[in-house]
Amino acid sequence: MNSSIDFTHDPAARSWVESANAPDTDFPLQNLPLGRFRRRGDHHPAAWRIGIAIGDQVLDFRKVAEAKIDLGVPLGALERGVLNAFLATGPERRQQLRHAVFNALGEDSPLQGALQRCLVPQSAIELSLPCRIGDYTDFYTGIHHATAVGKLFRPDQPLLPNYKHVPIGYHGRASSIVVSGTEVTRPRGQLKGPQDELPRFAPCERLDHELELGAFIATGNELGAPLSMEQAEAALAGLVLLNDWSARDMQAWEYQPLGPFLAKNFATTISPWLVTMEALAPFRAPFERPAGDPQPLPYLDGEFNRGAGSIDIALEVFLSSAAMREQGLPALRISQSNFRDAYWTLAQMVAHHASNGCNLQPGDLLGTGTQSGPGPGQGGSMLELSQGGKVALTLPDGSERRFLQDGDELTLRARCERPGARRIGFGACAGIVLPAA
Amino acid sequence: MNSSIDFTHDPAARSWVESANAPDTDFPLQNLPLGRFRRRGDHHPAAWRIGIAIGDQVLDFRKVAEAKIDLGVPLGALERGVLNAFLATGPERRQQLRHAVFNALGEDSPLQGALQRCLVPQSAIELSLPCRIGDYTDFYTGIHHATAVGKLFRPDQPLLPNYKHVPIGYHGRASSIVVSGTEVTRPRGQLKGPQDELPRFAPCERLDHELELGAFIATGNELGAPLSMEQAEAALAGLVLLNDWSARDMQAWEYQPLGPFLAKNFATTISPWLVTMEALAPFRAPFERPAGDPQPLPYLDGEFNRGAGSIDIALEVFLSSAAMREQGLPALRISQSNFRDAYWTLAQMVAHHASNGCNLQPGDLLGTGTQSGPGPGQGGSMLELSQGGKVALTLPDGSERRFLQDGDELTLRARCERPGARRIGFGACAGIVLPAA
Repeated sequence: MNSSIDFTHDPAARSWVESANAPDTDFPLQNLPLGRFRRRGDHHPAAWRIGIAIGDQVLDFRKVAEAKIDLGVPLGALERGVLNAFLATGPERRQQLRHAVFNALGEDSPLQGALQRCLVPQSAIELSLPCRIGDYTDFYTGIHHATAVGKLFRPDQPLLPNYKHVPIGYHGRASSIVVSGTEVTRPRGQLKGPQDELPRFAPCERLDHELELGAFIATGNELGAPLSMEQAEAALAGLVLLNDWSARDMQAWEYQPLGPFLAKNFATTISPWLVTMEALAPFRAPFERPAGDPQPLPYLDGEFNRGAGSIDIALEVFLSSAAMREQGLPALRISQSNFRDAYWTLAQMVAHHASNGCNLQPGDLLGTGTQSGPGPGQGGSMLELSQGGKVALTLPDGSERRFLQDGDELTLRARCERPGARRIGFGACAGIVLPAA
Repeated sequence: MNSSIDFTHDPAARSWVESANAPDTDFPLQNLPLGRFRRRGDHHPAAWRIGIAIGDQVLDFRKVAEAKIDLGVPLGALERGVLNAFLATGPERRQQLRHAVFNALGEDSPLQGALQRCLVPQSAIELSLPCRIGDYTDFYTGIHHATAVGKLFRPDQPLLPNYKHVPIGYHGRASSIVVSGTEVTRPRGQLKGPQDELPRFAPCERLDHELELGAFIATGNELGAPLSMEQAEAALAGLVLLNDWSARDMQAWEYQPLGPFLAKNFATTISPWLVTMEALAPFRAPFERPAGDPQPLPYLDGEFNRGAGSIDIALEVFLSSAAMREQGLPALRISQSNFRDAYWTLAQMVAHHASNGCNLQPGDLLGTGTQSGPGPGQGGSMLELSQGGKVALTLPDGSERRFLQDGDELTLRARCERPGARRIGFGACAGIVLPAA
């Protein structure tokens, strides 16, 4: 199993990259997330390369290859700047790379001198999506979100009868997935309030975020060949943060009977660093259903899933207005929750997706759905925090928010921490809202 | 405008490829659809190439290039076996190619001797998808289908209030789109009848087809930059037939609130030959709304669309059981309809899709939704033909069908014909149902 605990999870291990030993870094030696980057300003098509974040630096695999430094594992596809082919090699190769890089960046590594020249400061780079995303599917595993939103759309029946049996999901748009830092233009669309006789075409008036995680597929399956729960777990590469920007007014009018469409596909932002399943292993947690809830059907059940199917990931949402940034005010944390509260696990999402024979491919992305907690400050969207637009949040600049305004910057953050393990983080998933074109 | 009538639509024009002059061929000189093929049995990765169907032959562009035959237009991307890059060059280049190939294959062409060696019999080839499909979106433009199916799912409100204002669409799965001739395995999934207390996981018992057309995008748009109706029309490359295989029992249980998912993404079959917008030009027809219906919002309206937004394409569905094929019985035509009955045009689908800034890319595929006609023999799915499974069709082998059974072969066909124009066809979109794994 690719998620077993090993020496790379030793909380006392330190790196010769000093910034990786700072207690508050997202990228200590125990994390080692993968990303695709180039030097800022280098617009040559071949400038993109794959690297691993360590403290405030990136280990550049192209430089490692060019310098002919032997890490003890073949770099193969990692040299070419496209992550998909490396992910497709599966969890063992990923684990080997993790072991090799952990040793090479560890504080007593004989490779320190050689590798020093293969580091690039993160301040000098720009990141792209970590890999080419073939298909993107968004799930709906946040039961507190499903209940809260359901109440607004269907007061008589907030949680539909299928919710506790089916890991509900739907297809999203791959082409409009952008990396953290990309500005997001407010969409135009058909709006029709309950009082309006006819729809009008206008800029969205209820722009929202959704706090999600995104899971990348490493190995996938052939068309017609479902995955067992064990295979589903092994098919996962790792996680990023995901903001499923949503136009609530467009959504309310368009979504029946085939689901959300233009309300969602104008942009989806993900964080650039793929935090691997190996890095997340110490934070696995039992998957538990509330007493009295139905147990998953056999194709969605498994021993590993019951014992360690969940992952303890603390999630946060920050908001800053343009005025706050001008006044030097820090972003306001507007929500916090935990991925442990998800009603379905990642492996259940994958196994369900492939259960009808649908083929998943290396680099496919699965969103988890909005991860809201049960409490009042735990809504993963403005829709929930403002109770459908009825209650305003007051920002430090004195302005009020029911939904996102132009100039607002929305930032998702995530971290894993528990006693006996080194804290790891995901970096930021951020985007500023631009006015409608 | 890329759809104007020109000399390539002369119904009297003949080809030196004699089979192209047969009155019943789908591929006369006036059609010239694009496809991707290899010689059957040639499994070399570089064996795939792009060609144009002419009668029962294919003109092989790699051979044309290798023989250094000058058609008067640069072949460029067509030589490399990937259609996307050629489509991305836009309608003018496509029109130039059409003119050049029309002249080269025309009966007095001086190139006949040289090009003869660049023909491959269609009986000797296998075809793939015409191009790499980035994102796949399925629309719902068949109002008779929407009404008939709506009656089954929501007897109180068959057609939802948004239908006549919004070209309803949703994202589909790109990875499981397969070319005509690919066998389709019956999916397993969660089934729960109205009488069942709990769902069970079992092979689909209500497997269905859907008669659709698929539109390929040629030029697309940047993220954040919507397309006008004129730009949307010019963004289209052409059409194929599309069978949106559907598991109705899985669909009924899973589809709320986010739309169909596993009920659809186990397979979508398309025909291999991309019939270009230029070939379809003589069959354009006015786009008309029934009296009293709302007119489209301005972003979905345009002069060309009103005058010629629709296309007259006759559609047919054939079914044969394994027993019928063993007995040598011809397939039974179970339905016929016409794309003119669609409630929304192709350009409206494209303009709506991009209206929020969503970026379309060369090779993206848009399904039209099921094209049912208003009459009783015009349902584009078994669900409609059997009135939700209540009325059985009797096949020539004496067996009955409410939904598709293992061994059934489902074939879609389409043709355009009108007085004064040469009839063109789409070839077949076929698939045989295999038992659940």
